[in-house]
Amino acid sequence: MLAGTKNYQGIWLDESDPSVVRVIDQNRLPFFFETRELRSVEDVYTAISTMTVRGAPLIGAAAAFGIYLATFELSRNADHVHQLENAARYLVSCRPTAVNLSAALNFVMDRIRNNPADSSLRETALKAALDLCEQEKENCRLIGINGLPLIEDAGKRKNGNPVNILTHCNAGWLASIDYGTALAPVYLAHESGIPVHVWVDETRPRNQGSRLTAWELDQAGVPCTLIADNTGGHLMQHGMVDLVIVGSDRTTIQGDVANKIGTYLKALAAYDNNIPFYSAFPSTTLDFRLNDGLKEIPVEERDEEELVFIEGFNGETIEKIKICPDNVRGANYGFDITPARLIAGLITERGICRPSEKEIRNMFSDKIK
Amino acid sequence: MLAGTKNYQGIWLDESDPSVVRVIDQNRLPFFFETRELRSVEDVYTAISTMTVRGAPLIGAAAAFGIYLATFELSRNADHVHQLENAARYLVSCRPTAVNLSAALNFVMDRIRNNPADSSLRETALKAALDLCEQEKENCRLIGINGLPLIEDAGKRKNGNPVNILTHCNAGWLASIDYGTALAPVYLAHESGIPVHVWVDETRPRNQGSRLTAWELDQAGVPCTLIADNTGGHLMQHGMVDLVIVGSDRTTIQGDVANKIGTYLKALAAYDNNIPFYSAFPSTTLDFRLNDGLKEIPVEERDEEELVFIEGFNGETIEKIKICPDNVRGANYGFDITPARLIAGLITERGICRPSEKEIRNMFSDKIK
Repeated sequence: MLAGTKNYQGIWLDESDPSVVRVIDQNRLPFFFETRELRSVEDVYTAISTMTVRGAPLIGAAAAFGIYLATFELSRNADHVHQLENAARYLVSCRPTAVNLSAALNFVMDRIRNNPADSSLRETALKAALDLCEQEKENCRLIGINGLPLIEDAGKRKNGNPVNILTHCNAGWLASIDYGTALAPVYLAHESGIPVHVWVDETRPRNQGSRLTAWELDQAGVPCTLIADNTGGHLMQHGMVDLVIVGSDRTTIQGDVANKIGTYLKALAAYDNNIPFYSAFPSTTLDFRLNDGLKEIPVEERDEEELVFIEGFNGETIEKIKICPDNVRGANYGFDITPARLIAGLITERGICRPSEKEIRNMFSDKIK
Repeated sequence: MLAGTKNYQGIWLDESDPSVVRVIDQNRLPFFFETRELRSVEDVYTAISTMTVRGAPLIGAAAAFGIYLATFELSRNADHVHQLENAARYLVSCRPTAVNLSAALNFVMDRIRNNPADSSLRETALKAALDLCEQEKENCRLIGINGLPLIEDAGKRKNGNPVNILTHCNAGWLASIDYGTALAPVYLAHESGIPVHVWVDETRPRNQGSRLTAWELDQAGVPCTLIADNTGGHLMQHGMVDLVIVGSDRTTIQGDVANKIGTYLKALAAYDNNIPFYSAFPSTTLDFRLNDGLKEIPVEERDEEELVFIEGFNGETIEKIKICPDNVRGANYGFDITPARLIAGLITERGICRPSEKEIRNMFSDKIK
């Protein structure tokens, strides 16, 4: 998608140096657009854990490239596959909630373990990472196509006024490889000439909404308005939201969705006001092993520094300032679980299904082992 | 209540100069503790609209003192009562949502209009403002006493572990004259030796939670933890909240509560998890003329600057930094309405009642005209 006048995707192999993977530094946006070089497994681990790259599909892709970069660091005297398995184990420990991390690493490591004789491990790892990216791009493109009718239908009831869509956190192209998950249908609607307007939840504590989603939408020319995370309920009570679409970091077989902390509160408000609430994600975000999201999905707890300080732009540089008294501690949970009963539908690359075990099994029977 | 080693209340007459009213500058807390002089109606108007003083009971008290200060500005050649009525009309326009503003001004102006022959208007206005403060202090003291059993009862089920109370915004002594509304029972429980712990919602965009509630609780030695506004639902889903207590800016006869934006979302989460949700306020916050809060309570919309910039402490001074791209606009609604159906009870100076017209009428029959 466009950043300035040039097209980018969330991660790519450097054009001139094939031992370098490049990403957009999401901790610098929207104030500075900078790319970062990843040259090692350690670089990938750091980029994911510091959230230089974030978003469920993107951290999966970054981890996949991590195995490719690990092939440049293999020690001669030990089993190469075993070394790459160690790298995968290291990378999977990076962040706990998004299942895409382990799904992507399993995808690459399956290829590595079944490496064809005519291919080096490096070639195989690179091809796996690139295949994964292409597959996730295609998934996101299809999520857009499958979600578009929801916006079209809402538009029919608006007499030419914009369809108001509320989203939480960033589930746009920055979070995936391209197009986005929650935002893919929005971009497609905008391109199709359907008037849309997005309410962008700030998404404290890290402000992925105000920093990334607002930036993405602005770059694409999609009208949007920033709101505090507290505001969605009020808007919904007053008929100012037609549709809620969020992403997912892990969805269970019964349709419970782990997504950025605060998603559950918006789902409750949508339900209370009869506003359809959708979660959009590629099937790589489905965790077929889990049933009850509340009991089974691990929720990341991050450093309180992300909460008691806030980052912003002072006109020259990105600065951190304190928002509470020195003695006071903070608790920083990264995700919450939205139970299936609050969700109108799941938008996937194969279409929209209801968040029930039956419909999920029907739609993805070939993927369930 | 204590600030450092000295006792303060939210507003007071200057000890040495009776033409000066003093307040704590709440826009400087928790980084600087500074008091401000109010010398005129204009000073009061500015202090309320810039939220140097805020909180429903306190802005009522500040407006009452505003009429007193107006008596120093009376023009000889016009009717004095008429001039004070103009001052009251000006002050009531300051902020729209909290009904305490008009209730306090009506209280003072009734006294002014019925001024006894042996008293000057100035003496009458001052006595009215001081009486109002004493009455609101007593109301808050009684709210504490009436709310305490809720915490005691919750404590009985905790086996000596702290009762976890979640609050939104600041409804402590800073928001009232003393003791607080939502926090009055918490302070009393803490003084009574019941272990309590407060989850403090940051309360974007103005951060009254992280800046004022966290400061108040810390000064009083009450254990507390700061959380992002997004976090309460997750905590409630995991049994980490026993009780929610918030304040109110206006409560209708059917028990709908206008309170700081985001309150409704927490009420939904409390309801969804069978956690009792209480609103605590003095009867001056009741608006007996209104029924349906959603349709009838005016919700203040404030400048987007409060949202797209955030204030914090850089180690030397309070600084504002930007949190979104330059092109993006923000919408800044100050309050939302929590419908009575989500509220377990209303904690008032006369006791706790259910949020129903019948129980509110029973408890306050003498106040309903």
